[in-house]
Amino acid sequence: MISTSTAEELRSIVGKEWFLDTPEDLATYSYDGFLPEFLPDGVIVPGSTQEISGIMKVVNREKIPVIPRGAGTNICGGSVAKEGGIILAFHRMNQILEIDAENMCAVVQPGVVNAVLQKKAAGYHLLYPPDPASMFVSTMGGNVALNAGGPRGVKYGVTRDYLLGLEVVLPSGEIIRTGGKALKSVTGYDLTRLLCGSEGTLGIITEITVKLVPLPPAKTTLQAVFSDLNDAARTVSAIIGSGIVPTTLELIDRVVLDVIRNYGDARFPKDAEALLLIEVDGEATSVEKQGEIIEQFCKKRGAIEVERANTPEEAEKLWQARRTAFGAVASVRPNCIVEDATVPVKKLPEMIRKIVSLAEKYRLRIGVLAHAGDGNLHPLIMTDLRDRDEGERIDKAMDELFEATIAMGGTLSGEHGIGIAKKRWLSMEFNQAAIEIMRGIKKVFDPNNILNPGSFL
Amino acid sequence: MISTSTAEELRSIVGKEWFLDTPEDLATYSYDGFLPEFLPDGVIVPGSTQEISGIMKVVNREKIPVIPRGAGTNICGGSVAKEGGIILAFHRMNQILEIDAENMCAVVQPGVVNAVLQKKAAGYHLLYPPDPASMFVSTMGGNVALNAGGPRGVKYGVTRDYLLGLEVVLPSGEIIRTGGKALKSVTGYDLTRLLCGSEGTLGIITEITVKLVPLPPAKTTLQAVFSDLNDAARTVSAIIGSGIVPTTLELIDRVVLDVIRNYGDARFPKDAEALLLIEVDGEATSVEKQGEIIEQFCKKRGAIEVERANTPEEAEKLWQARRTAFGAVASVRPNCIVEDATVPVKKLPEMIRKIVSLAEKYRLRIGVLAHAGDGNLHPLIMTDLRDRDEGERIDKAMDELFEATIAMGGTLSGEHGIGIAKKRWLSMEFNQAAIEIMRGIKKVFDPNNILNPGSFL
Repeated sequence: MISTSTAEELRSIVGKEWFLDTPEDLATYSYDGFLPEFLPDGVIVPGSTQEISGIMKVVNREKIPVIPRGAGTNICGGSVAKEGGIILAFHRMNQILEIDAENMCAVVQPGVVNAVLQKKAAGYHLLYPPDPASMFVSTMGGNVALNAGGPRGVKYGVTRDYLLGLEVVLPSGEIIRTGGKALKSVTGYDLTRLLCGSEGTLGIITEITVKLVPLPPAKTTLQAVFSDLNDAARTVSAIIGSGIVPTTLELIDRVVLDVIRNYGDARFPKDAEALLLIEVDGEATSVEKQGEIIEQFCKKRGAIEVERANTPEEAEKLWQARRTAFGAVASVRPNCIVEDATVPVKKLPEMIRKIVSLAEKYRLRIGVLAHAGDGNLHPLIMTDLRDRDEGERIDKAMDELFEATIAMGGTLSGEHGIGIAKKRWLSMEFNQAAIEIMRGIKKVFDPNNILNPGSFL
Repeated sequence: MISTSTAEELRSIVGKEWFLDTPEDLATYSYDGFLPEFLPDGVIVPGSTQEISGIMKVVNREKIPVIPRGAGTNICGGSVAKEGGIILAFHRMNQILEIDAENMCAVVQPGVVNAVLQKKAAGYHLLYPPDPASMFVSTMGGNVALNAGGPRGVKYGVTRDYLLGLEVVLPSGEIIRTGGKALKSVTGYDLTRLLCGSEGTLGIITEITVKLVPLPPAKTTLQAVFSDLNDAARTVSAIIGSGIVPTTLELIDRVVLDVIRNYGDARFPKDAEALLLIEVDGEATSVEKQGEIIEQFCKKRGAIEVERANTPEEAEKLWQARRTAFGAVASVRPNCIVEDATVPVKKLPEMIRKIVSLAEKYRLRIGVLAHAGDGNLHPLIMTDLRDRDEGERIDKAMDELFEATIAMGGTLSGEHGIGIAKKRWLSMEFNQAAIEIMRGIKKVFDPNNILNPGSFL
């Protein structure tokens, strides 16, 4: 609970219309892309770094939890008030402050939507590569806090790889800057990357400088359908082993394909067991050549159908299956749990087989979408959270899934974060000494534990 | 000083021949690529992670400083015993444990020499991109500890960008693992990248997993000579603005060219004020095309001579000037101080002009080598450290240099580290709150301050 006088103090910092505490407001901010709900005690919507500094001084003194929140699209419970407190929402701080084309970078406020930056950068023939599925709504602040990835990760990497600098408000209200527009820096500890992926537990990110790259002049998109998952997996290995670095290399399994077939406009043969969506970009002649090589790889390894887009419209059509996948799967049952296990690339087929066997063993319906090029799997568990028996079976299946992931040399999360969704498995991946180091770091930044408490640590 | 009983205890861990404390041994390890000397109290050469764990338990209990050291090529004083203690040398732990071609990664011990890994990876048609000038002697452990860069950084980035996982021994002797072979991971705080560039102050790195990339099938190398530095700078901007991402884009200024002319075999016109060495790599047809475009850029912007290599031998010839530069400059006077200021790319000409004006103002001889493509300058100060008056002028010039660097939005060090060489300027780049956070992190890892004490914090 927030006392009346504290609420007044906060209102005096941001203006009274920007501190919200009606039941409707609180309910609106009680959930995010993860399912469980937690009612916050208030919602504050600052307009500047200075206001955030003022807010932090108050809440740190009063030991009130603060949870920074962009669009709330994360699916690990990273932006909900697990222990009460105040949601700090960024929709007023949504300005692209600068596109510096000569230095190939952009400076943005945390509330800028990823796709808005993409569009603006494209006007300068520049690309901001990270493209999470949520990019049309998710914000840059959230992308940094979760170290968001996306289909282009195979070639271009993740958010972390494009971060040049941050402005951050500490719980004390002090403002620090890390990095800047220089492309290289080894000065001091790498606080920039420590904050990236810290899920709002170390500081409030208030300004972000990211690197941009030249917009590739050409792109080609292919869709290959296989009647045998192993053929698709062998094709993935062949492409990666050939020296071609595709921009995107997505895999959709039979379970998801069966759902999509009855949902949208995507068309593919009935006996499809796996679909690969492949993109390469770069200079026109080399893209053309790589497209041909990939087409041959697919055909030689048993693809029953290969389509190649010649125009942006045709490419968009090939993306249909992938783009509708989440929506289609989510429509099957009341809830859909999206997992994010990631393994070394060559373990991908083994991991998919494991998921199929877990679905059978625990009588669950699990589809798989995978960023196959980087071993990042998204098992999609179609369920009804009201069914407690099924919930218990899911828990057991997930325990086994992550045991297998770690045993294969993988990681709990490739790009979605830990939050409350996966904290119970953290000690599978890190030993006690490593977790104690993380706890120590948390305490250095946030001695009163007011930043997103109850999260992964 | 190390007591006889502690020395005995250390000998019992590594075997008596691997703890060295004769005056000759201590003198050998009293300096590194930075100039000042500090005599250590002992040198220990462990053979395994377990031995290092044992060593750390002893030295942590006795509060004896430990300084990890690879080849000692760093030029920031990162591997000397500034407050006495033991040098921990890695030449016994020099095995490439695995090249995992299918997952495109390598697992190495810290004592592996960068070029040895490069050569081994090339046998699998794979490339480990970071290529510091020291690569034929410097070790992977040192490369990680300093976050080494190199000429290929323009296209490929730095050591940090290829790190997948680490094994690290903490001062307590506990062993932690961060990351692994998965290409993506957002589980917990990014300890991997926090350790990268930490200059041996947080933990002892005992095993390194790095990402490899496909070896590009083709490469072209160009050398362009300009009689006006501004023409060279405009050419750099033109190349970068064109959407071409060169692998390498090096600039050598007149001062260095004049030195090289009298030193090695490199040939270029007498009125050369700047030389650009440019490389592009990738698929053959696109490399060919990009080479032509770059050649035109150079000619249109006033290059007085452009040479393009058609064979690896010709390419090696064009690299002559760049490769001999350090040696040539170092031969002019008894000492050469290599600086590492890095600015946003478009500030490069302004920064070079600043360096020229500082050389005049303080009557110094300063040449410039620059990784021009990423704004990373290496001013080379030819001096005689015995000349105290000149030393004071250098100090003043450096103060002004770094003030200008920071004012331009740059950083103290692009790739060489801070160590003792630049610690006095740290507060120009970070405010007190940020430095306190770094100190806090140091304390979490190393409460007794035994790891490389007296370094940048």
